[in-house]
Amino acid sequence: MIKIGIVGGTGYTGVELLRLLAAHPQADVVMITSRSEAGMSVADLYPNLRGHYSLAFTEPAEQELAACDLVFFATPHGVAMRMVPGLIAAGTRVVDLSADFRIKDLDVWSKWYGMPHESPEWAARAVYGLPEVERDAIRTAQLVANPGCYPTAIQLGFLPLLEQGLVDATRLIADAKSGASGAGRQASVGMLHGEIGESFKAYGASGHRHLPEIRQGLSAASGTAAGLTFVPHLLPMIRGIEATLYAELKDVSRFDELQALYEARYAQEPFVDVLPFGSHPETRSVRGGNMCRIALHRQEESNVVIVSSVIDNLVKGAAGQAIQNMNIMFGLDEALGLDQPALLP
Amino acid sequence: MIKIGIVGGTGYTGVELLRLLAAHPQADVVMITSRSEAGMSVADLYPNLRGHYSLAFTEPAEQELAACDLVFFATPHGVAMRMVPGLIAAGTRVVDLSADFRIKDLDVWSKWYGMPHESPEWAARAVYGLPEVERDAIRTAQLVANPGCYPTAIQLGFLPLLEQGLVDATRLIADAKSGASGAGRQASVGMLHGEIGESFKAYGASGHRHLPEIRQGLSAASGTAAGLTFVPHLLPMIRGIEATLYAELKDVSRFDELQALYEARYAQEPFVDVLPFGSHPETRSVRGGNMCRIALHRQEESNVVIVSSVIDNLVKGAAGQAIQNMNIMFGLDEALGLDQPALLP
Amino acid sequence: MIKIGIVGGTGYTGVELLRLLAAHPQADVVMITSRSEAGMSVADLYPNLRGHYSLAFTEPAEQELAACDLVFFATPHGVAMRMVPGLIAAGTRVVDLSADFRIKDLDVWSKWYGMPHESPEWAARAVYGLPEVERDAIRTAQLVANPGCYPTAIQLGFLPLLEQGLVDATRLIADAKSGASGAGRQASVGMLHGEIGESFKAYGASGHRHLPEIRQGLSAASGTAAGLTFVPHLLPMIRGIEATLYAELKDVSRFDELQALYEARYAQEPFVDVLPFGSHPETRSVRGGNMCRIALHRQEESNVVIVSSVIDNLVKGAAGQAIQNMNIMFGLDEALGLDQPALLP
Amino acid sequence: MIKIGIVGGTGYTGVELLRLLAAHPQADVVMITSRSEAGMSVADLYPNLRGHYSLAFTEPAEQELAACDLVFFATPHGVAMRMVPGLIAAGTRVVDLSADFRIKDLDVWSKWYGMPHESPEWAARAVYGLPEVERDAIRTAQLVANPGCYPTAIQLGFLPLLEQGLVDATRLIADAKSGASGAGRQASVGMLHGEIGESFKAYGASGHRHLPEIRQGLSAASGTAAGLTFVPHLLPMIRGIEATLYAELKDVSRFDELQALYEARYAQEPFVDVLPFGSHPETRSVRGGNMCRIALHRQEESNVVIVSSVIDNLVKGAAGQAIQNMNIMFGLDEALGLDQPALLP
Repeated sequence: MIKIGIVGGTGYTGVELLRLLAAHPQADVVMITSRSEAGMSVADLYPNLRGHYSLAFTEPAEQELAACDLVFFATPHGVAMRMVPGLIAAGTRVVDLSADFRIKDLDVWSKWYGMPHESPEWAARAVYGLPEVERDAIRTAQLVANPGCYPTAIQLGFLPLLEQGLVDATRLIADAKSGASGAGRQASVGMLHGEIGESFKAYGASGHRHLPEIRQGLSAASGTAAGLTFVPHLLPMIRGIEATLYAELKDVSRFDELQALYEARYAQEPFVDVLPFGSHPETRSVRGGNMCRIALHRQEESNVVIVSSVIDNLVKGAAGQAIQNMNIMFGLDEALGLDQPALLP
Repeated sequence: MIKIGIVGGTGYTGVELLRLLAAHPQADVVMITSRSEAGMSVADLYPNLRGHYSLAFTEPAEQELAACDLVFFATPHGVAMRMVPGLIAAGTRVVDLSADFRIKDLDVWSKWYGMPHESPEWAARAVYGLPEVERDAIRTAQLVANPGCYPTAIQLGFLPLLEQGLVDATRLIADAKSGASGAGRQASVGMLHGEIGESFKAYGASGHRHLPEIRQGLSAASGTAAGLTFVPHLLPMIRGIEATLYAELKDVSRFDELQALYEARYAQEPFVDVLPFGSHPETRSVRGGNMCRIALHRQEESNVVIVSSVIDNLVKGAAGQAIQNMNIMFGLDEALGLDQPALLP
Repeated sequence: MIKIGIVGGTGYTGVELLRLLAAHPQADVVMITSRSEAGMSVADLYPNLRGHYSLAFTEPAEQELAACDLVFFATPHGVAMRMVPGLIAAGTRVVDLSADFRIKDLDVWSKWYGMPHESPEWAARAVYGLPEVERDAIRTAQLVANPGCYPTAIQLGFLPLLEQGLVDATRLIADAKSGASGAGRQASVGMLHGEIGESFKAYGASGHRHLPEIRQGLSAASGTAAGLTFVPHLLPMIRGIEATLYAELKDVSRFDELQALYEARYAQEPFVDVLPFGSHPETRSVRGGNMCRIALHRQEESNVVIVSSVIDNLVKGAAGQAIQNMNIMFGLDEALGLDQPALLP
Repeated sequence: MIKIGIVGGTGYTGVELLRLLAAHPQADVVMITSRSEAGMSVADLYPNLRGHYSLAFTEPAEQELAACDLVFFATPHGVAMRMVPGLIAAGTRVVDLSADFRIKDLDVWSKWYGMPHESPEWAARAVYGLPEVERDAIRTAQLVANPGCYPTAIQLGFLPLLEQGLVDATRLIADAKSGASGAGRQASVGMLHGEIGESFKAYGASGHRHLPEIRQGLSAASGTAAGLTFVPHLLPMIRGIEATLYAELKDVSRFDELQALYEARYAQEPFVDVLPFGSHPETRSVRGGNMCRIALHRQEESNVVIVSSVIDNLVKGAAGQAIQNMNIMFGLDEALGLDQPALLP
């Protein structure tokens, strides 16, 4: 059994970690912290967990966290970078679900997150936790930076094209849409049901924090500086991300190879499912599950490759991928505890 | 492993059976029938099942079904009553999720379902599959009539009061609300998203088919003819039933005993959870799970007992309860395959 | 033209007043106040009003408000009772959409609203603004206490029965459901889309502030102390209230008279629409409109009268009724500016 | 008063025409046809219209339609092209809300709509009813082809860029999202609430019927063959379209001119509202209203112009634009009956 601590467990990512870990045969959650809810039973805050956990939230105590085999950070940015070095020094391994260790260029990080980075050493040493790219490094990592939700859906959708150099990497467009749970569980007028129910809009269209993270991954895949335009949108629903991706094929005669390329690229991946050419993946087909489903499209004789990629932002986009990383780090079956079908309808 | 057949698997109840059985360690679904979709892969109709099933829908073939240990009927009413006698004669056990065998008074059944009953013998012998009431009979039953969704939520909410004779059984009110999946997956104008999204209404307020089924159960519990007014409503969401129940306490001085009574009545039940007095159970706290959560309320010095009862109509109200019944029938742990936390948010 | 001021205009009731008044040919909104948003253009906060208003929010200034013919209060409770006496003394008439002046028994008011009442004189003199009951008094009122949303739907549904003494007034049940806009536009975790989307629950089941207001109205109608059980519920949608009402008919032989009674009672009412017996009014049939639609039901030979009543909580349940009251107070056609069809679908 | 007939009035476009025309001071709807619902009162099918119309649906009768000043077709494609020539010959003017007369190249039309065109003469003479482009021709038109919903949002978003030749017209991308009412009110499994609620997907990504219509308009605006990739998506809500548009600016130094260009282009347009640079228009800001709201974005130093354009698909995307065209055709104030604020929240 892996002794697990969770820092910052009151948000949607925290409850999702608890939900998934309850079904994981090797996970033993021994501690979950929250400054604001210390003393409250986990099951009182999240009644779906009644009967599954007897834990209560506690104040974050570094010594007790350090006694865990693995600590998940489900905190706002700026928290993990302060606590992680001490935990690792004590021999604890960490999966950070926040943005603290995702970006290698710390000037870029500071610009988008509005503060200096306090752990440049571990920012450099952290492994980016996208198993489809970094599996080998994850196995031995002490610190895994769990990818953002949009970056997961978009990178998995673009990767085969970029790795093979088939498209113009300077002209990538990602039009992405997310359910409201992506904004977390903080009180705000803008995320009230009365504000976002039965409505739709773009947000962050002039620049969103996930943009540099995605560019970094796409650039690495293509071996060149990727030019990406990324516009996120807010859906009137709770879970799910769909990203529609557009790229120009350099050699239009190779369009017919693409489906086979995607299928081959992801053939061994337990959590990437390439649908038949021309399919339309629905977010509900991955709701509650750790799967990313992808389909390709072409309009008439166009040279534009259209990719539709869907994930559950709280699972493959956060807690599920974190557990997938845990499984890899601890030498377990990568799919352990993560292989239930999605909830449909 | 239990060899399982499913008749009529294209609806929401069918896909939910498949979803839950995929996580059940003793279930082996060998056959799923559908006249309309024969030949189509299950995973093509329901992409959330990709990777979990290689089955395709087939024409219903009695001989092959008879080779199963257990057959679930997820058909419209009128189908099971024709096929069940033959299957049972061949040694197969049956859980019928339709309404064919739920009502003992066949005149009442015929009046509400608009056809004569074709299997009076098995209507008499069928066991009503509410484990909290009929567990012992279910163990050895050849045919279990799985309860309706509203009847499950409402009976579990009223039972302790009626069994103890504490309330006026002639003055019961059940105001119930269901998500749209309760209406099934048939094409209809009335269930379009454009018709029921962002709106709310009562339906069947002058009489709904679940009324006689509920009355039968409440009458049995109270030992007298129950007088029930039952009004269902349609919620602009997919899964979940909430029933708010009203009953008059005969002896108002006994109000303080009720919470303890409910807790004791359901203390050993794996799928009934009595919340603290004054709680408000949310349907999302049971989404995807087999739990029924119940809470009690009182307004000032009133003699009216208010009960709020929630279930997922597709799980405890249909497929989950059917599997719970299967577990009981086959001597398994009653919660096997059914103990995941609900999906929240 | 009526010179109008609005105090507390940033909430949903405020924007709804502005929306409706934009289409009112005799309304001239000259001032709208908000401490928190002073200086912001109304159209910047509510883009649906771009091109309709050039007003900006201002600090509440009593002198300028006193220059209006009519002031609407769309404030939290406790504000109007402090400002109203001064405005009336200055000759301004007031429609208060808050709860400050709705309840005549100030001990009851203080108990439910948690503060002493600061204007007992005007609490006594205020006219309860339910035009279907108090039309004559509204005409000359200086201060109208606009009814709450639940109280409007429930009183209009029960009134004909109680006025005629046909039902047992000590055994009334109102099971009511409201869209999320009823909770206003304050930041809160509990009203996030992620919390209430795709879910349903009762709330305030042990006692809600609208209970004493409704009891007061029902008692007046029946001439006796009404015994009401009232349970509100939260719908995963924005606008609309449905109340399902239950009452026991004293003389069951009179059931057949009820439809004609309702039709006669509301024949002259521009904003109460009695549907054919056995109809199921939908909240969408009144979305954005000032109408209350009502239908009656009976189950078999029961003595229970079932009434379903729907309104838009922001219109007939708040801003629309306030304008209806304004029309009456100023001798205008009662339906002026309020006669658009509801938005369906 | 304009005597108006509506052919095919039972769908969402039909009820929306009726809703808007009820508030139009010069409109007199004398006839509304439906084969399937002939004899049914309009208000029985659409309870929001109770009290506004006493009309019943009738069989389509050409002679009576020909007595109207104006006939709206709200029919599936293939109907109007058969009936229009006769009506025009009889002196009636027509606004066709179907796709029959939108596309000038009839080979293209036949390819996408799967039938030969039966009125090539009027296909050639029909005026495309986008007032922001064709206002003068609309004034005197006998037949106006009302634009599709996606084409309206997308053309208005791209027009200023293309008319000025500022962007590469061969590399246009339109990622569009629509509420479910765009699919109409026909019974279908795919549009059930249970299928599309709480989910999101692309559809028609390999080619959608609106693609040739949009390309035709964009090509006309740019004076060259536009290269457009258009992917529609289905939103879990009822009303509203948002289109996010991407185009490459030829001369990146001219980015700063764009906001002024858009504002100037639409300064005189009553139903196009250019928001401040960097705004995020919400579909709810136009719900029920005839407005198109547009905003521009740029990411860092990119040469990609991002445009977000929102409309209500049933109003500016269908019935409202049809009435706007009627107003122009009959010399009325273009905004007559169309100037109410949108319904928010």
